[in-house]
Amino acid sequence: MNDRHASLRNLDLGPGKEFDLVRTLLTEWGNSAQRIGDDAAVLDVPPGERLVVTTDTSVEGVHFKREWLNHFEIGYRATAAALSDLAAMGARPLGVVIALTLPEVDRSEARALATGIREGAAAVLCPIIGGDLSAGKTLSLTITALGSVARPLSRAGAKPGDRVYVTGSLGGPQAALRSWQSGQQPTEEARARFACPVPRIDAGMALAAQGATSAIDISDGLAADVAHVAAASKVRLEIDVEKIPAIPGISPVEALSSGEEYEIVVTAPHIDVKQFTQEFGLLLTEIGRVVAGAPGVQILQHGDPIGTPSGFDHFREK
Amino acid sequence: MNDRHASLRNLDLGPGKEFDLVRTLLTEWGNSAQRIGDDAAVLDVPPGERLVVTTDTSVEGVHFKREWLNHFEIGYRATAAALSDLAAMGARPLGVVIALTLPEVDRSEARALATGIREGAAAVLCPIIGGDLSAGKTLSLTITALGSVARPLSRAGAKPGDRVYVTGSLGGPQAALRSWQSGQQPTEEARARFACPVPRIDAGMALAAQGATSAIDISDGLAADVAHVAAASKVRLEIDVEKIPAIPGISPVEALSSGEEYEIVVTAPHIDVKQFTQEFGLLLTEIGRVVAGAPGVQILQHGDPIGTPSGFDHFREK
Repeated sequence: MNDRHASLRNLDLGPGKEFDLVRTLLTEWGNSAQRIGDDAAVLDVPPGERLVVTTDTSVEGVHFKREWLNHFEIGYRATAAALSDLAAMGARPLGVVIALTLPEVDRSEARALATGIREGAAAVLCPIIGGDLSAGKTLSLTITALGSVARPLSRAGAKPGDRVYVTGSLGGPQAALRSWQSGQQPTEEARARFACPVPRIDAGMALAAQGATSAIDISDGLAADVAHVAAASKVRLEIDVEKIPAIPGISPVEALSSGEEYEIVVTAPHIDVKQFTQEFGLLLTEIGRVVAGAPGVQILQHGDPIGTPSGFDHFREK
Repeated sequence: MNDRHASLRNLDLGPGKEFDLVRTLLTEWGNSAQRIGDDAAVLDVPPGERLVVTTDTSVEGVHFKREWLNHFEIGYRATAAALSDLAAMGARPLGVVIALTLPEVDRSEARALATGIREGAAAVLCPIIGGDLSAGKTLSLTITALGSVARPLSRAGAKPGDRVYVTGSLGGPQAALRSWQSGQQPTEEARARFACPVPRIDAGMALAAQGATSAIDISDGLAADVAHVAAASKVRLEIDVEKIPAIPGISPVEALSSGEEYEIVVTAPHIDVKQFTQEFGLLLTEIGRVVAGAPGVQILQHGDPIGTPSGFDHFREK
């Protein structure tokens, strides 16, 4: 057995195909790849701020299919997905660390993957600070994102009287998946929302500054993820389904369970949504409220309860 | 397509098989799993110290075979391998983040995997601070280790006049691999060195305090890894092969290229090896010196050059 991994951590690399691959990645990352060297990357957390860390794996055949996405998009999406968790903490990115398992068949696409990762990180001004390259049969990316913030947002701070807000318009990823699964090409808008989501970093930081009491990203779908806020905050959330912003062709009810979204939901006493939308060029919509009562989520349609959503259970028996 | 990943980040989990698995991991980790909650983990870096981050992937069939290791050992080894990179920086662990891709067939072993991860981290008093669980066809663990240190060691500080030291005795992992590959069971000692290596955290911190000028872990084998020190420090390293400490049954020349080692090599003006060995119960051996000259490594046997080692090239054509 060989030890088939190579770190991306040494710029003074010897000869050989493994290091050629690493060099390809580093060349492509250029100035995005800061401080790669030694056995580990070294970072400074700004004084007075706390470190925020999150990790996210994207596996071929599980989180994406190679028939649907090109390698640029695979890299972009995996990176954006990890960074999205920082947005939900109100944190500013300090760097991403990339663990890449690259099958033989994907080696010719290493450059495109690297470019996608670079652009996904650059979209939120985040440097690439380290990585690890492995051989393997299945294409897989594990992205660890590090950020910092003085007072991290959590899921546990929602209070009765708060309102519930969501960024962006939902349903794009679901529309893209639906197209692919029926053998069609998705619209450009739907494809972009699935393949190249924009982590809501600026929005997360601004909403934290404007008094957000809790936040979560809704990568498992709005209904499933707000249930985590309700459980952690021990409050009841009422969601007005007709208010949920959805892209054309997707109904608000469908948007409720659309997964793969990288928008964020926050609770706050009050956010001026009009001013926010103008300032950030990003839709912010009030979709419900926090009330006292048994922890949970109540979905209302024009004021009438239409049931309690259940979360996805990805490991359920098929 | 489902989004088949679940974070390990929320203790207030809903029902379902996915969350049952996460609960299994969290139960097994118990007090080791600190601060898991929200979209990301929150950590504080001690004032005056810098953050050190490293990531390491272990893929079934590439870094280990399931015929060789049980699931406890798979978890232990992957965690120790990542933490070993902190040792080479002279850093103290702050936490590990675990990204686990768990095939259906391994679900019944989730508890054993979790225990191995816990014990691998606990061996160096490191908490588990977060994670991500994915379905997939190939068992794979990506461990990101975070640590802190006021002045990180690097590969680039070796200076002519320094001596070269290595911790421990080499060759155990190679002996274990050789046994397995020939259909034998390795000795307990060789197996333990492959399956449950001990990251040299205390040693790395102590050697940094005692004036180490550079350090590296030798997971690719001593010869290959000291070449990185030579390149980064722009110095020449002379290694006296007969001084290399090896376990019984492995020759010093074999030990030179034994990979999968998680010992560390440091350069320093002078370390009292006898005192070090007594204090840490860990062998420290002087194996060579740093000289001026063209950057590279010269292997000497009783003073005579026996060639320049070439590193492994794990992606070479077979």
